[in-house]
Amino acid sequence: MPDDVEGPVVVDIDDPDDPRLDDFRDLNSVDRRPDLPSGKGLVIAEGVLVVQRMLASRFVPRALLGTERRLIELGGDLDALDAPFYRASAEVMAAAVGFHLNRGVLASASRAAELTIAQVIDGARTVAVLEGVNDHENLGSVFRNAAGLGVDAVIFGSGCADPLYRRAVRVSMGHALLVPFAKAEHWPADLKVLQDKGFQILAMTPDPAAQTLAEAMTELSGQRLAILVGAEGPGLQEHTMRSADVRVRIPMSRGTDSLNVATAAALAFYERDRLGR
Amino acid sequence: MPDDVEGPVVVDIDDPDDPRLDDFRDLNSVDRRPDLPSGKGLVIAEGVLVVQRMLASRFVPRALLGTERRLIELGGDLDALDAPFYRASAEVMAAAVGFHLNRGVLASASRAAELTIAQVIDGARTVAVLEGVNDHENLGSVFRNAAGLGVDAVIFGSGCADPLYRRAVRVSMGHALLVPFAKAEHWPADLKVLQDKGFQILAMTPDPAAQTLAEAMTELSGQRLAILVGAEGPGLQEHTMRSADVRVRIPMSRGTDSLNVATAAALAFYERDRLGR
Repeated sequence: MPDDVEGPVVVDIDDPDDPRLDDFRDLNSVDRRPDLPSGKGLVIAEGVLVVQRMLASRFVPRALLGTERRLIELGGDLDALDAPFYRASAEVMAAAVGFHLNRGVLASASRAAELTIAQVIDGARTVAVLEGVNDHENLGSVFRNAAGLGVDAVIFGSGCADPLYRRAVRVSMGHALLVPFAKAEHWPADLKVLQDKGFQILAMTPDPAAQTLAEAMTELSGQRLAILVGAEGPGLQEHTMRSADVRVRIPMSRGTDSLNVATAAALAFYERDRLGR
Repeated sequence: MPDDVEGPVVVDIDDPDDPRLDDFRDLNSVDRRPDLPSGKGLVIAEGVLVVQRMLASRFVPRALLGTERRLIELGGDLDALDAPFYRASAEVMAAAVGFHLNRGVLASASRAAELTIAQVIDGARTVAVLEGVNDHENLGSVFRNAAGLGVDAVIFGSGCADPLYRRAVRVSMGHALLVPFAKAEHWPADLKVLQDKGFQILAMTPDPAAQTLAEAMTELSGQRLAILVGAEGPGLQEHTMRSADVRVRIPMSRGTDSLNVATAAALAFYERDRLGR
């Protein structure tokens, strides 16, 4: 493409077996899926909105595959794209991908370099810290809620699923690509890194003796804060809980158990945002 | 079973084709599924917790199917059961149901008589009203959040999915069987029924000109309240919105769109509960 022409290089593809579509092949295959960390480890964005967020993220697209209609919808968002847009019919896409994809457009990217905890907390006022969140949908929902409710970064303790797995990216509405995240190398010892930077560690628990969310967030207003959430069911491990500065509960109706982990996190993010970072 | 012996009638089943298992047959089949409203229309509970909630609900079990282990776990919960417990191996269960079911126990019930709006709002302080929530998982999540966060009943406007579909019941953790619900016959005209009983109608919207959740719930404290939530994406229909007394938004970060509908509802339920019913 000459330098003075804006827009992506559009390449028409008629053959679903064309090797240029390999980034998107067999997306649902248990063994061959291109987003498997043990395989190609690609990041896959689905749909116009998520592709737009990938374009705005640190994940640089390798290729896009989509219909004419989605190419038009993306329009000027593709002006700076330095990767081919493979234009294909819905049928060719379905044959390559392995199922009918009604979102009509995909983008692939290599995994960006992992960020460190020090990098993601730099300048952050509120971070979410997850332990044992091993469900991709819940993980994606946490990113969506974090983005919407003023959380600056996500940190993974032990036992969490891969936030760059296709379903997690989709459920996050692409925010898994935008909200910076880092994995703890030493868990829960790395919570000390946060405390050394002035973060208060708030652990969510169903314990009725804990402070309520509203009480705790009022007291912590103006301080740097890490909101620590554990898996549904088991909750936070006891030695993780002991590393926290304050234990906090969501007031619940009698006879009910915990909320979904992403919902519980959303309530904490909301109260944090409401009561002042 | 003699009258003086407590506990269920346990019947061992070795043949997955035994017609006594028909309530649970082909649970994943698109056409033959027993929980299809157009077919048998049964309500299916999965897992010990959800079966326990069915036993406590207005949905009277027709039959249970489970392993020896789950029979023991349910124990005294089955004392008042007036239906057979079909005891089978995990393999026989999988062959009848059509897939391996790691929750190990199922219960079937007929649909209870539908409740009216007048019935479900009798004595209620807070109700959720849904429009266009056509996803079973979101619907189940709304019930779980309603139960945990002090909402007394759920009312369905137009375009909502079936709350008694198996997946909705499972995601609700069984609360779809316990939180009373009713369907509007005339929509949105039936909102007037609520207003006539003193309910304020609060409509959730992304509109930045709307009041914040915290402001509105403070003003509405002590009044009967209906929290009206629309589908993700389109939101509430304009003529529904016009029926509301107050429009309310969740304060969101810049550059993000709406939250998941069940999450948005949870934030509203939480603020209602916090600021006083």
